[in-house]
Amino acid sequence: MRVAIQGELGSFSHEAATRMAPKAVVVPCARAADVFDKVSSGAVNAAALPIENSLAGTVAEHLDLLLTRELFIRGEFRLRIRHNLIAAPGTKLSQIRNVFSHPVALDQCRKFFESHRNARPVPYYDTAGSVRHIMSEGLHDAAAIAPRGAAAQYGGRVLLAGLEDDRQNFTRFLLISKSRKVDASANKTSIAFALKNVPGALFKALSVFALRDISLSKIESRPMRGRPWEYVFFVDMLRGDDEPARNALRHLNEVAEFVKVLGIYPAASAATRA
Amino acid sequence: MRVAIQGELGSFSHEAATRMAPKAVVVPCARAADVFDKVSSGAVNAAALPIENSLAGTVAEHLDLLLTRELFIRGEFRLRIRHNLIAAPGTKLSQIRNVFSHPVALDQCRKFFESHRNARPVPYYDTAGSVRHIMSEGLHDAAAIAPRGAAAQYGGRVLLAGLEDDRQNFTRFLLISKSRKVDASANKTSIAFALKNVPGALFKALSVFALRDISLSKIESRPMRGRPWEYVFFVDMLRGDDEPARNALRHLNEVAEFVKVLGIYPAASAATRA
Repeated sequence: MRVAIQGELGSFSHEAATRMAPKAVVVPCARAADVFDKVSSGAVNAAALPIENSLAGTVAEHLDLLLTRELFIRGEFRLRIRHNLIAAPGTKLSQIRNVFSHPVALDQCRKFFESHRNARPVPYYDTAGSVRHIMSEGLHDAAAIAPRGAAAQYGGRVLLAGLEDDRQNFTRFLLISKSRKVDASANKTSIAFALKNVPGALFKALSVFALRDISLSKIESRPMRGRPWEYVFFVDMLRGDDEPARNALRHLNEVAEFVKVLGIYPAASAATRA
Repeated sequence: MRVAIQGELGSFSHEAATRMAPKAVVVPCARAADVFDKVSSGAVNAAALPIENSLAGTVAEHLDLLLTRELFIRGEFRLRIRHNLIAAPGTKLSQIRNVFSHPVALDQCRKFFESHRNARPVPYYDTAGSVRHIMSEGLHDAAAIAPRGAAAQYGGRVLLAGLEDDRQNFTRFLLISKSRKVDASANKTSIAFALKNVPGALFKALSVFALRDISLSKIESRPMRGRPWEYVFFVDMLRGDDEPARNALRHLNEVAEFVKVLGIYPAASAATRA
């Protein structure tokens, strides 16, 4: 089995792919659109994509791609984000002047920089890529903040682990594929819908779930691409492919301009209801 | 009047600040938290902050800061995002090998890179900062993708304008201040609320608006910091400080765990209803 990710080997996406498909060969792609292309063309069997981080919020581009492409969510995984200080073997903590990483990762490790005043944060385009950078350039006054897997991938050494300020830092990943097969244990459905532009439309749309006692674990509105300030709603409902869920979706089709089922899959764990 | 922004002079935030407060002195800050600190301490009178881009989505960090800090939204502005190719005076288009910009801006100008194969995109932490970089380093084989204001700010020259692939590219900015004064023409209210973790809670919460024919222009759920997978809802309603709006908010307080009014202000233009 081959699973595509956006970004470098050794990244958090790589780790999530391995957790969701343990024996898979992971295929790195430069852009999220490439990931979707590879799944659509059959070059890979599936893809692992981050969709939401508990601190940084939604990955808007991935929601948009789920909406416009014909792929299906088959599973989800919640990865705890642990940041590590990784350097070339032999480099000591006291030697480090520049610390490369993605700006979001740097910002999530503020306490480290407060207590290590000689180390200067240097924004880089990718966490795992910053480990590759210091290794390939042979830098010995530098380190990277990256997932543990990046050290193994590029031959770096973990000098410090758990650099993140907030341990309540999770990213939700989706496993997506071309097949619309629904797992027997599926108990979660992700949908997208747009509403007619009239007052109370969202209230009516949500009534289709409330009237059937169906819990929602997430709702989000996103501007539609090309139609700024018109919104698509992304909703996760805590039901699989059963009678009440099918009735709710049929009812939603009556009040919405369009409804798209993005996937029906087993929920990662008990989710918050709203 | 002094208005703080996050990022460099010459940025889109700088432009938005000048549009919302034409005579203001603009004060650049490194981090969004610094922007809020400066407004709270009285070091500046207000701040201009991007909250949502029609392609890239919500600026999650800014929503979180509005939720946790005691500042108030006083106005909004929708800025059309126009990307320009900016180089040092004398640099010709044919000389350019490296094009610096923020990764989001680079990604929004794909057609330019497809038709200019010699120019390589180079990720940089900031759009306006990339103009400052090529000017201060005296680079003549490089350019930056940045707002027009960055050329004026750092002495660069606009070689090409309108590089963005999609012209439906807008960013919504908020003007925030310490004062809770409500403008007489205010017709929009931004609120945040959390719900008890029971099925149908969101449906009940939205009923307080639907029952009073109050239109919502936006709804978004965000994970609560420190309580992953519990959500805060951010809602914009198309009403100012009038009787139905006050009744709706009182009613919402009965069904929500907490309600916070983030601001009451004049809407930028007719908004989409949901």
